[in-house]
Amino acid sequence: MKMDLNSDLGESLGAWRMGDDDAMLGIVSSANVACGFHAGDAAGILQTLRRAAERGVTVGAHVAYPDLAGFGRRAMDVASADLQADVIYQIGALQGLAAVAGSAVRYVKPHGALYNTIAHDERQARDVIAAIRAIDPSLVLVGLAGSPLLGWAQASGLRTVAEAFADRAYMPDGSLVSRREKGAVLHDAHAVAERMLRLATEGVVTAIDGSTVRLQAESVCVHGDSPGAVEMARQVRALLERSGVTVAPFVDEGAAT
Amino acid sequence: MKMDLNSDLGESLGAWRMGDDDAMLGIVSSANVACGFHAGDAAGILQTLRRAAERGVTVGAHVAYPDLAGFGRRAMDVASADLQADVIYQIGALQGLAAVAGSAVRYVKPHGALYNTIAHDERQARDVIAAIRAIDPSLVLVGLAGSPLLGWAQASGLRTVAEAFADRAYMPDGSLVSRREKGAVLHDAHAVAERMLRLATEGVVTAIDGSTVRLQAESVCVHGDSPGAVEMARQVRALLERSGVTVAPFVDEGAAT
Amino acid sequence: MKMDLNSDLGESLGAWRMGDDDAMLGIVSSANVACGFHAGDAAGILQTLRRAAERGVTVGAHVAYPDLAGFGRRAMDVASADLQADVIYQIGALQGLAAVAGSAVRYVKPHGALYNTIAHDERQARDVIAAIRAIDPSLVLVGLAGSPLLGWAQASGLRTVAEAFADRAYMPDGSLVSRREKGAVLHDAHAVAERMLRLATEGVVTAIDGSTVRLQAESVCVHGDSPGAVEMARQVRALLERSGVTVAPFVDEGAAT
Amino acid sequence: MKMDLNSDLGESLGAWRMGDDDAMLGIVSSANVACGFHAGDAAGILQTLRRAAERGVTVGAHVAYPDLAGFGRRAMDVASADLQADVIYQIGALQGLAAVAGSAVRYVKPHGALYNTIAHDERQARDVIAAIRAIDPSLVLVGLAGSPLLGWAQASGLRTVAEAFADRAYMPDGSLVSRREKGAVLHDAHAVAERMLRLATEGVVTAIDGSTVRLQAESVCVHGDSPGAVEMARQVRALLERSGVTVAPFVDEGAAT
Repeated sequence: MKMDLNSDLGESLGAWRMGDDDAMLGIVSSANVACGFHAGDAAGILQTLRRAAERGVTVGAHVAYPDLAGFGRRAMDVASADLQADVIYQIGALQGLAAVAGSAVRYVKPHGALYNTIAHDERQARDVIAAIRAIDPSLVLVGLAGSPLLGWAQASGLRTVAEAFADRAYMPDGSLVSRREKGAVLHDAHAVAERMLRLATEGVVTAIDGSTVRLQAESVCVHGDSPGAVEMARQVRALLERSGVTVAPFVDEGAAT
Repeated sequence: MKMDLNSDLGESLGAWRMGDDDAMLGIVSSANVACGFHAGDAAGILQTLRRAAERGVTVGAHVAYPDLAGFGRRAMDVASADLQADVIYQIGALQGLAAVAGSAVRYVKPHGALYNTIAHDERQARDVIAAIRAIDPSLVLVGLAGSPLLGWAQASGLRTVAEAFADRAYMPDGSLVSRREKGAVLHDAHAVAERMLRLATEGVVTAIDGSTVRLQAESVCVHGDSPGAVEMARQVRALLERSGVTVAPFVDEGAAT
Repeated sequence: MKMDLNSDLGESLGAWRMGDDDAMLGIVSSANVACGFHAGDAAGILQTLRRAAERGVTVGAHVAYPDLAGFGRRAMDVASADLQADVIYQIGALQGLAAVAGSAVRYVKPHGALYNTIAHDERQARDVIAAIRAIDPSLVLVGLAGSPLLGWAQASGLRTVAEAFADRAYMPDGSLVSRREKGAVLHDAHAVAERMLRLATEGVVTAIDGSTVRLQAESVCVHGDSPGAVEMARQVRALLERSGVTVAPFVDEGAAT
Repeated sequence: MKMDLNSDLGESLGAWRMGDDDAMLGIVSSANVACGFHAGDAAGILQTLRRAAERGVTVGAHVAYPDLAGFGRRAMDVASADLQADVIYQIGALQGLAAVAGSAVRYVKPHGALYNTIAHDERQARDVIAAIRAIDPSLVLVGLAGSPLLGWAQASGLRTVAEAFADRAYMPDGSLVSRREKGAVLHDAHAVAERMLRLATEGVVTAIDGSTVRLQAESVCVHGDSPGAVEMARQVRALLERSGVTVAPFVDEGAAT
């Protein structure tokens, strides 16, 4: 049994710090690294990439809408030509920095509002898919487990990885409970670790109504933006490993060019 | 006899147009393409790269300080870690877009205030050189003919290309007449073409005091930001070709990977 | 009979020019001046404000989403606290520049996607209304004729001005024909001038299906982003004045503090 | 005896937090509030202004170069027209937000590289002075004690306030020890408080070589960007008050319009 753990990193900006990249790089197997559009300055991104390379953590491009002020969390109606080119630009920039850091970009995980939009919006989804295929069709697309995005991407020839969220509650149909609802975000690190162990071993999570929902996920997203979040991520990894689940990236780095 | 003609392209930004890229791509052999820091949005850059690929025009990264409001023309005291990473980021982004356009980045020509600063400022020069070497040591650095930058870059192992400016007056020592001085910018297209022919064939230009100054230049920078500028560029190319000078890029595209 | 003519001005950005502000300030009675979020740098805005003051043209704040790359034309889901504060920030900045230019901000006309969104989206509309009322309840809100926005604003105590678009076709219900439809934008300056004369004198326009639609509008928006647009604006003004319609701002500058 | 304490506030940006504004507003008498160019988003600035109003803390505009990525700490060669208009724009924006918050902008304290540059660079200093005078000549300019800036500003008719830095070492001539030198920054909160008490009561500080240097300062700058910094600021205030020095703003809010 195997499970990937991924987290959003490289999200500091100039004088502003965010998260504890060093701590998280000791926990996760895959790092979603900011590309400068929602967060991240080039020097900070490069530093995170260097540490990811030292730790052997796989790197993905955390592409986003161009919106520093909103941290890429605001839905934007970006035209296809712009969205495609913006995604290529971000992946290319990260590829350049990764090459210098002795690493390489292996996957793409869209961020924030872009992530949520393309999970269901076919036009923007196809733009992101087209951009990834244009720059490097061997890149894996990480998306929301159960979302139509994954099917569209697979049909276009991209390899996809479905992810679950460690600290989020699920609806009986496998969708996320909206952040506006009570109980949408889970805070008990121990319970979260148990949930993710069950997901890794049985392929199910308990939904918010107590029912059991099947969830096909190759990766689990954990957060590192607070000391509590780092500790939760640590517990998820520890319980998985104690229980015989290997925490490892979904791409085989050894096979990489 | 051979001479490269280069021009700054891809400098539109969203709704704002700048220059006539299509016209210039029919004139120059090398395109310095904006990377989004002083100008250029990803979709516009991609379009320019596609047309450059169709025309067989060689592409260089026109890297700059992060300053859209000042069009990269304002000197900025950027720390080494930032400057190096910013240059890598820009080259990487352009490489990504160029790959999609069926082109490739062959050289780097810094823009505006960064160009002027590194011509003489050793610290920032060495940062730009280090960045280029880190991402791709086969990239050529285009810089001001006669500037110490070229020596620093060569000593580090980079290939350099010295460039002259078609529409600028020169001092007897081979430096440019400051734009603040009268007569710094030349407007007579015919006279400019004659100057550049002499540069290409004899390796000299007439300085502002009438003396003859030797200028080692493999490339001539022409502008395309007004109809008059485009016409001047066209005349320079026409006279060079009529006189038996081949207008061709300084890199051998056939030899490229 | 009286009609206001308004146009979007101050939309250049650093090295990038847009429109012919000087020409338009000789034609319109009200200038919607960019505030730096979708377009406009402070020095360029100040210059436009100075010329507006010289010409006696009334000034409004052309507030927008923070989106230079998209020229404020992309719908953005901005949270209430941000939208309110962003609008106040932009109005305040323009008030400061206007005071220096010997002018004053008399009205607010949202730009692009914000304009379109608040015409119908009550949440964002109420945020913009709250922002205007908070900074200066004597500011007039200019919005789309027939849109619910005007009612919401009036109910909150703001004075509103409904505007029509000179170069746009109308549906029989008084809404604009979508730009995606054929015939949405009118190009015949003579016909446009005749339409606006009829609007000013009879309060009606001919809809795209030939029917006559009543349109309550105190202001007509004309464009200045091309020589053809400037000429169309000139013809609209000329015909109105020849026909006895006074072109004048909707606010009484004489009564201003 | 009286002394003003000032601190830089409102420097968060969207999702990125900086400093503890609430704590500092309980300590200082004057708040230098970011204006969006080096830091600060409109909603965050407005929140800080509201809390400053509740606490009765005087507000100043912390104007800066347009450089979020560099936090306004990088010297920039900004042309006069741009620098003047940028300063007016920032003050105007803050005035708008302050009015809504029930506060008002009483002074201007330039930030970072702009602060350091205008302390000695006459061209940029005169641009900032001209901008302040243009928008509101009753605004006070806060600058480095002993710098030529203060003289230029006074000669132009502006009221100035000289400030000292609580946690910085001084040279025997009253200038700051460069941050590049050992001992430039002081970390002992108790010693710092004693130094500031002596400054307030005797008008002197002990220089880095042990000599006593006279320093005319009406305000002391304290920092709030770490828990240690907040504690140091608290001790400075506490010792001043215990020793009979009134901590109060340098402008008489009661006299304000």
